[in-house]
Amino acid sequence: MIFLFTDFSYDDLYAGQLHASIASIAPEVPVVDLLHSVPNFNIRVGAYLLSALSETLPEEAIVVGVVDPGVGGPRRPLLLKVNGRWFIGPDNGLFNVLVRRAARLESYRIDWRPISLSTSFHGRDLFAPVAAQLAIGTLPECSSCDLAVPDPMAWPDVLCEVIYIDHYGNAVTGIPGGALEDSAVLNVRRRRIAYARTFCEAVPGVPFWYRNSLQLAEIAVSQGRACDALELKIGDRVAPTD
Amino acid sequence: MIFLFTDFSYDDLYAGQLHASIASIAPEVPVVDLLHSVPNFNIRVGAYLLSALSETLPEEAIVVGVVDPGVGGPRRPLLLKVNGRWFIGPDNGLFNVLVRRAARLESYRIDWRPISLSTSFHGRDLFAPVAAQLAIGTLPECSSCDLAVPDPMAWPDVLCEVIYIDHYGNAVTGIPGGALEDSAVLNVRRRRIAYARTFCEAVPGVPFWYRNSLQLAEIAVSQGRACDALELKIGDRVAPTD
Amino acid sequence: MIFLFTDFSYDDLYAGQLHASIASIAPEVPVVDLLHSVPNFNIRVGAYLLSALSETLPEEAIVVGVVDPGVGGPRRPLLLKVNGRWFIGPDNGLFNVLVRRAARLESYRIDWRPISLSTSFHGRDLFAPVAAQLAIGTLPECSSCDLAVPDPMAWPDVLCEVIYIDHYGNAVTGIPGGALEDSAVLNVRRRRIAYARTFCEAVPGVPFWYRNSLQLAEIAVSQGRACDALELKIGDRVAPTD
Repeated sequence: MIFLFTDFSYDDLYAGQLHASIASIAPEVPVVDLLHSVPNFNIRVGAYLLSALSETLPEEAIVVGVVDPGVGGPRRPLLLKVNGRWFIGPDNGLFNVLVRRAARLESYRIDWRPISLSTSFHGRDLFAPVAAQLAIGTLPECSSCDLAVPDPMAWPDVLCEVIYIDHYGNAVTGIPGGALEDSAVLNVRRRRIAYARTFCEAVPGVPFWYRNSLQLAEIAVSQGRACDALELKIGDRVAPTD
Repeated sequence: MIFLFTDFSYDDLYAGQLHASIASIAPEVPVVDLLHSVPNFNIRVGAYLLSALSETLPEEAIVVGVVDPGVGGPRRPLLLKVNGRWFIGPDNGLFNVLVRRAARLESYRIDWRPISLSTSFHGRDLFAPVAAQLAIGTLPECSSCDLAVPDPMAWPDVLCEVIYIDHYGNAVTGIPGGALEDSAVLNVRRRRIAYARTFCEAVPGVPFWYRNSLQLAEIAVSQGRACDALELKIGDRVAPTD
Repeated sequence: MIFLFTDFSYDDLYAGQLHASIASIAPEVPVVDLLHSVPNFNIRVGAYLLSALSETLPEEAIVVGVVDPGVGGPRRPLLLKVNGRWFIGPDNGLFNVLVRRAARLESYRIDWRPISLSTSFHGRDLFAPVAAQLAIGTLPECSSCDLAVPDPMAWPDVLCEVIYIDHYGNAVTGIPGGALEDSAVLNVRRRRIAYARTFCEAVPGVPFWYRNSLQLAEIAVSQGRACDALELKIGDRVAPTD
C-alpha cells in the first residue's frame, strides 16, 4: 500500500498526477493521501510531521515523501527502509528525523530513470513510479548509499517550535508529549500555557496544551482557535518550563 | 464500501489517518471521502447534511460519521443500522435526523476497544477500525442499546436555516424541497427570494431558490455568489411564505 | 480506470457524490481525482487544462469532465474517444481543445438516461454512471453525432493567457513550451519575464518563465509567489516577444 506525503495541496494540479502516475503502473494498489498540506517548501517541519505520522502506518507501508524545493538540482533520489517501512523521495533533509530515530535503516540511491523526466516534477516522474514498481514487487535499479548523519543540533529530538496549524486553529509543536510532565508550562508569545488532558477538561476560551493523537504537544483552545487567540504561526518558539 | 463524513477538511492531518487506519485492517475495501467539510464542530448542520447525503449512497454503505467536539468525554460510541445502511460515530446528535426519519432502525453501543485509544482522535482509533472490521465481515463486540428519541422541536423535519455554503457561494437550507410549492418565497436577511427551476432559467445576478440535487431548497445567484450578494452565513434564518 | 476533472473543489459536497455514484455501479474500478480546482464555471481554461493533463494519463483512461454552468439547459451529453482515451461530459466547449488536437476522434451523444435525473447535478446522475458502465464494459445507449469544429480564433493552439494559478503562486499559461525559444520574453502586466530552465537556476525573487511539467510556459518566482509579485490573475494577457 502506498501513502502520499507532500506539500502539493489537494485542491491543485499535482496530487492527481501522482495518483495517475502510480495507477498507470500499479492500478490494483491502494493509494492513500496521507497529507498534502505540509507547509510549502518547508522541509524542516515536513521531516517532523512525517516522522510522527509514520508511526500510524502499517508495517509494510510504502511512503512517497515530496517536499522538494530543490527539484531539478543535484540532490539524490532516495529509497529508504526505516523500521520496515519504505520511504521514497529527495535527499534534502525530509527524512532526517526518521533517520535519526530509526532502529533499523537501509538506504539506497535510486539509479533508475524514466524515459521522460521533467525538471520540475520528480514526484510524478520518478518517485511515484518507483513506489508503484516496489508495490508490485519489481524493485527498480538502486545502489546502496551512505546517508549523512543529521546534525543533532539542527534536527533535535525535541523541536521547541510550532510545526503545523490545523484547520481548527490548533498548533502542533515538535515536542514529543512524552518529553513533558503534566506540570509543564509552555511559554509561547509571552503567554504561559498549562496542561489539560483533553478538550472536555479544558476551560472554554483558555489556551491549554495536551498530548495529541500523534503523541506531540499541541496548543489548543476549547471552543476557540488557538492560532488566532495567540497569533501563532509556523516556526514560533515554544519554550517548556516546569 | 466505506464512506467518510467528517469536519476534518481534506487539506489537513486527519482524513489521511482515517484512510490509513481502515487500510491497515481492510486494504481491499474501497473508501470514499463523502464529505470532510462539515462546518467545524457543527453537529446540528452535520446531522441534516448526513441525512440528505445518505439518500445518495448504495444500500449496503458503511458510513463513518465524525463531528465530535466532545471526543474524550462520556458520549457513547454508536453503531446504527438505518434503512439497511450502517452508521458509526459518536452519540452526540450527529445521527438524530437519520434516526428521526428512519423506516428501519437498529442501534448498538460499541463495546470493542482498540489496544491504544487516544483521547482526541476516536475517528482513527475506534470508529474507522470498527467500519473496517464490519466491511470484512467481522463485527466487533457491540450490545443493543436504546437511543433517546430526538426532540422534534430541536430537530425539526423542516429546518428553516442555512446549513451549508458551497464553494460557488450557494447556500443550502435545511428545508426539504418537497415541503415548498413553486410559488413559495423565502425570506432571508430582509430579502424575498423567489423560485426558479434551475440556473438556466434564473435571471443572472438575481437571487433565487431551487430544489438542489440533495432535494433541499438552496439559495443561489446565476453568474454570481449568493453568500456574498446576501451576506449569508451558516445558521441564518430562512423563513418560507406563500 | 476513471479520472475526475471538475470545478467541484475537493472540500465540498460534490466530488464525494461522484465517487459514490461510480462506486455503486463499479466498486472495483479505481477512481482518481485528477483535478477538482478548475476555476469555477471557466470552461475555456478548463479546456486547455484538460488537454494538457490528458497527456499524462494512461491510454485506456476514462475521464469524467464536468465544468457545467449550463446544466439543466439544452446542451448535449457527450461521449468522446480521443486518441484512445474516453471523455464524458457536457457539450459546452470543455472538450474543444482536445478535439482540435485529436489525431483520432470518435464522438457520440449519450442517449441513456438514469431513472432519476436532477436538474443541477448531471455529473453525479448522468456522466459518472456512464463512466462506471463503460469501465465495466457495458456501454450505455449512445448514437454517433457530429461535433461543431471549434473556431480556431476562439480556441487557438497558443493561448496567450494565464489559465491557472497554483497554490505556490505559480501562473500557468496556455502557451505550449515548445512554441517558445529559450530567448523568448513574456510580457505580462508591463513586466518582461525572461526564461530559466528551472527553479534552481533562477535568481531568487526575480520572476522567470519555464516549461512546466505539463509542457506549458509557466511564470514563477524562486522562493516567492509570482501571482503576488506580479498581481496575476486568471485571464491576464501574456504576450511573447523574441
